[in-house]
Amino acid sequence: MKPEKASLSRRAVVVLSGGLDSTTCMAVADRAGYELHPVTFSYGQKHAVELESAKRVAAYYGAAARHRIFDLGGYIRGSALTDPDQPVPTGRSEQEIASEIPSTYVPARNIVFLSLALSYAEAIGAEALYIGVNALDYSGYPDCRPEFLDAFQRVIDVGTVAGAHGAGIRLQAPLVGLTKAEIVRLGSELGAPFELTHSCYQGARPACGICDSCLLRIKGFREAGLADPIPYAVPVDWTPSSG
Amino acid sequence: MKPEKASLSRRAVVVLSGGLDSTTCMAVADRAGYELHPVTFSYGQKHAVELESAKRVAAYYGAAARHRIFDLGGYIRGSALTDPDQPVPTGRSEQEIASEIPSTYVPARNIVFLSLALSYAEAIGAEALYIGVNALDYSGYPDCRPEFLDAFQRVIDVGTVAGAHGAGIRLQAPLVGLTKAEIVRLGSELGAPFELTHSCYQGARPACGICDSCLLRIKGFREAGLADPIPYAVPVDWTPSSG
Repeated sequence: MKPEKASLSRRAVVVLSGGLDSTTCMAVADRAGYELHPVTFSYGQKHAVELESAKRVAAYYGAAARHRIFDLGGYIRGSALTDPDQPVPTGRSEQEIASEIPSTYVPARNIVFLSLALSYAEAIGAEALYIGVNALDYSGYPDCRPEFLDAFQRVIDVGTVAGAHGAGIRLQAPLVGLTKAEIVRLGSELGAPFELTHSCYQGARPACGICDSCLLRIKGFREAGLADPIPYAVPVDWTPSSG
Repeated sequence: MKPEKASLSRRAVVVLSGGLDSTTCMAVADRAGYELHPVTFSYGQKHAVELESAKRVAAYYGAAARHRIFDLGGYIRGSALTDPDQPVPTGRSEQEIASEIPSTYVPARNIVFLSLALSYAEAIGAEALYIGVNALDYSGYPDCRPEFLDAFQRVIDVGTVAGAHGAGIRLQAPLVGLTKAEIVRLGSELGAPFELTHSCYQGARPACGICDSCLLRIKGFREAGLADPIPYAVPVDWTPSSG
């Protein structure tokens, strides 16, 4: 765990899944000097093992007591990540992953996550709301794009008392324009605890190494010239690639 | 209960609290010919008795089997409607009610409601999402204004697959520009079952008659020249007023 910091008055709510991106996002918000208030969502995802990673990451940043886990039960569905009869795709090429809306799209997931995180942020007087979305390597998810973030900021500005009458709440998506390799480098520089994270869509430990999420993560580490500290169920060549 | 209709393929999700406005909204969506999919939120509101009204209204419209109740536990808070140590204000004048953000504002409530309703709408292939917000008599709530609805429509259009790649989901707020009296008249004309509804913020049955919500409802019926069919704990003069 990192050393204790002096009490901070500036609060940030961070949407923390327990994966690579949201953990890097925690590192960015931490470096910005915020008191971190992580929120994690249990929504029936097959990779619910990521909740344990989220808890460990929150604890690493000294935020365990402020960590909120929102259980959405079966309220969001219609995705290969949630529905038992839809398999998680595996073994796809980078082109295949990028070419269409993946079946792992969860209807309006980030809108739901941001809304509950926003309500919480407004209730505790937070000035920033961080989310680790990333437009480049997941271009198939519409709720990861800059135009979505701009639209949601507008919702905050006109739809909350904090936005319409107060100092506002800033939506921060520091990874939105980064490649996965750049995220790995940034997190590494900031000392993000990658060894605690979980990304595998199949919820496997060791990670399966063949679902879209594992494939993008492995590619990111290779392009960053680093070896991923988490174990994989398949042999992975960590020789740096040029990307 | 209304007579059974032929099976409809056009679906609408309706945010149904069980109050006057959302019940009128159900009537509008029903008249528009939609198969109604009401969603109701339990969020620790003191007037949880409204959930029973929502169930009765859903049943009235033949939608009991499609009625979803989302339990948000204590995930939204920071309001006189949810927090035990904040009393619900009573006995305020119309000017007082309109002059400031009421303590009954629930942080980002409609954003949270719309987000979960949107996710559900996208999962079931609904083409419309109805919400009974009303800007005129609740001007203190920023998430009831047309500019908020426009901003949320933009979030739908760019942040969902339905919006970004499909036929889209239309946010419908048919009451937004109506006075409470006009809502009462509209609901009455459409045969909305006002006798099943609940509006009192204190959760009282008979309704307290002195909280902001009761006061606005009573005023609406009087201005519409109608008597409210629900009982009140205080004597109410139903002589039509000019408003």
